[in-house]
Amino acid sequence: MGEFDLIARYFTRPVRRAALGVGDDCALLRVAPGMQLAVSSDMLVAGRHFFDDVDPVHLGHKSLAVNLSDLAACGAKPLAFTLALSLPEANEVWLKGFAEGLLALADAHEIELVGGDTTHGPLNICITVFGEVPSGKALLRSGARPGDDIWVSGTLGDARLALDALLGKIDLPPDALSAARLRLECPTPRVALGTALRGIASSALDVSDGLLGDLSHILEQSQVGADIDADAALQTMAARKSTLILPDAQWYQCALAGGDDYELAFTAPADRRDQVLAAASETRTPVTRIGHVTAAPGIRVLDAQGNTLPQQKWSSFDHFA
Amino acid sequence: MGEFDLIARYFTRPVRRAALGVGDDCALLRVAPGMQLAVSSDMLVAGRHFFDDVDPVHLGHKSLAVNLSDLAACGAKPLAFTLALSLPEANEVWLKGFAEGLLALADAHEIELVGGDTTHGPLNICITVFGEVPSGKALLRSGARPGDDIWVSGTLGDARLALDALLGKIDLPPDALSAARLRLECPTPRVALGTALRGIASSALDVSDGLLGDLSHILEQSQVGADIDADAALQTMAARKSTLILPDAQWYQCALAGGDDYELAFTAPADRRDQVLAAASETRTPVTRIGHVTAAPGIRVLDAQGNTLPQQKWSSFDHFA
Repeated sequence: MGEFDLIARYFTRPVRRAALGVGDDCALLRVAPGMQLAVSSDMLVAGRHFFDDVDPVHLGHKSLAVNLSDLAACGAKPLAFTLALSLPEANEVWLKGFAEGLLALADAHEIELVGGDTTHGPLNICITVFGEVPSGKALLRSGARPGDDIWVSGTLGDARLALDALLGKIDLPPDALSAARLRLECPTPRVALGTALRGIASSALDVSDGLLGDLSHILEQSQVGADIDADAALQTMAARKSTLILPDAQWYQCALAGGDDYELAFTAPADRRDQVLAAASETRTPVTRIGHVTAAPGIRVLDAQGNTLPQQKWSSFDHFA
Repeated sequence: MGEFDLIARYFTRPVRRAALGVGDDCALLRVAPGMQLAVSSDMLVAGRHFFDDVDPVHLGHKSLAVNLSDLAACGAKPLAFTLALSLPEANEVWLKGFAEGLLALADAHEIELVGGDTTHGPLNICITVFGEVPSGKALLRSGARPGDDIWVSGTLGDARLALDALLGKIDLPPDALSAARLRLECPTPRVALGTALRGIASSALDVSDGLLGDLSHILEQSQVGADIDADAALQTMAARKSTLILPDAQWYQCALAGGDDYELAFTAPADRRDQVLAAASETRTPVTRIGHVTAAPGIRVLDAQGNTLPQQKWSSFDHFA
């Protein structure tokens, strides 16, 4: 199958909202008056971001989900995306599954694939997403203030638990593994929560490389520090509710520096707790308060007894470390 | 060097025109009222789109140039771009050169890098460019009409000549090789010509996979055909002006199906020839009339004697063929 047939068969659908979609040199998008365009780009590499034998339906979902998660972290409403795909071969079974997972998530968010590129090479998936946010209303990393609460959405650490099990570092019972694996392979971008937090949250980002490492970007850009309640963060893990027994260090590692969570970490003034909880309730997204912003720089991680835990073990995931 | 240091050192510069650049979850762009956003994404893979040992300064240039060429083909003015980069190692010499070539071309077009991603993996460069074009004024592939002239900008075929020489298929004298190699490695995106052709050209695209193959996309989308003057196309080749002697088939192959030209192929009504030539002159971009659009579908390639040449040899480049 040629390149153009392949694009046509799996990825071309009628354009609905964009002015011009797949099949010209550029896609054309309209941005409504008073809106800014939010743009983010993520690249997923076989063997680095996913296992070669991962279910292509899950991979299609995740490739778009991690990008939508960036829009969510800015409070932007998704509009469209481009896909650049390097494939070792035009495997129709793989492509069909990949397109299915990708386009199902696109449909769920009412966005469309407007362009891109396909080429021959090692498996590499690069998606660029476009969203819109009212001018001046985007959630940035630089707005956290001392005294603000620190919140996270959903559950932390389960994706890392699955990864460690798949890498043979820990043993998980089949039920626990398959639940955790869904979190690793099919993360839920918190788009509705992100837009609901506009005007409420003082800063936000998405947790992709591990809570503490990602949170440090907010703290640096806001020139503040944080006290983190390790147990509160740890209690968000779905696996904690099971009968699973693991060493404490493993739990902490997963929850605080796990990576691949694609949850939102955000700050909000303490007098906006009700508004945060209302936004969470409206969007059916669990949120947990896990600490507060301090004037003193750095992150202090505290256990249930209020003791500071050593952090050197929980460094952020870094693709070149 | 860690991922974040690497981004900061080579790719972060102060934001000038975008509302928010590298360092948050999304970049934020403003699109002026009455404008549409034009978006295009191209992925370059080592060993497929460039040789592993190519000068990284040239590669940085080309990675952005091929994307700007897509904006040019739509008549869009470039605004900004994102870069997703997969690297086998954080080689500082390579990165410094790549960033130099990339950002020099960005500066020449007064656009800025607003975001992206870096990761570890086989060398892969994915750039997404953003441009603006007045609503309804984009040059599309679907507007060619019978009787329209067919034009190309600049020179065709020299890039392919260099590629064939570098692959050892033909011998070129050192001077001819280095001139042709510059066309292969440092193409000039025809951005100024593209915007100047708004309202004049009836259709346009950029020639990246070879003239005949690319032109067929215009013909299919416009439901027309074309008569091409092979010698006119061939005379655009810079190498034709040298003392180089090659078989006719080689010249035709390069000019008609060479690929990697990044020139504009466009159509315009015959009564707009003066306007086309004025646009070319204003933007200091050579243009050559190489044929005309016909009502009958398909492409007929004619030699200087008006005989139809067989075309099966000059198929378009296809990444999965």
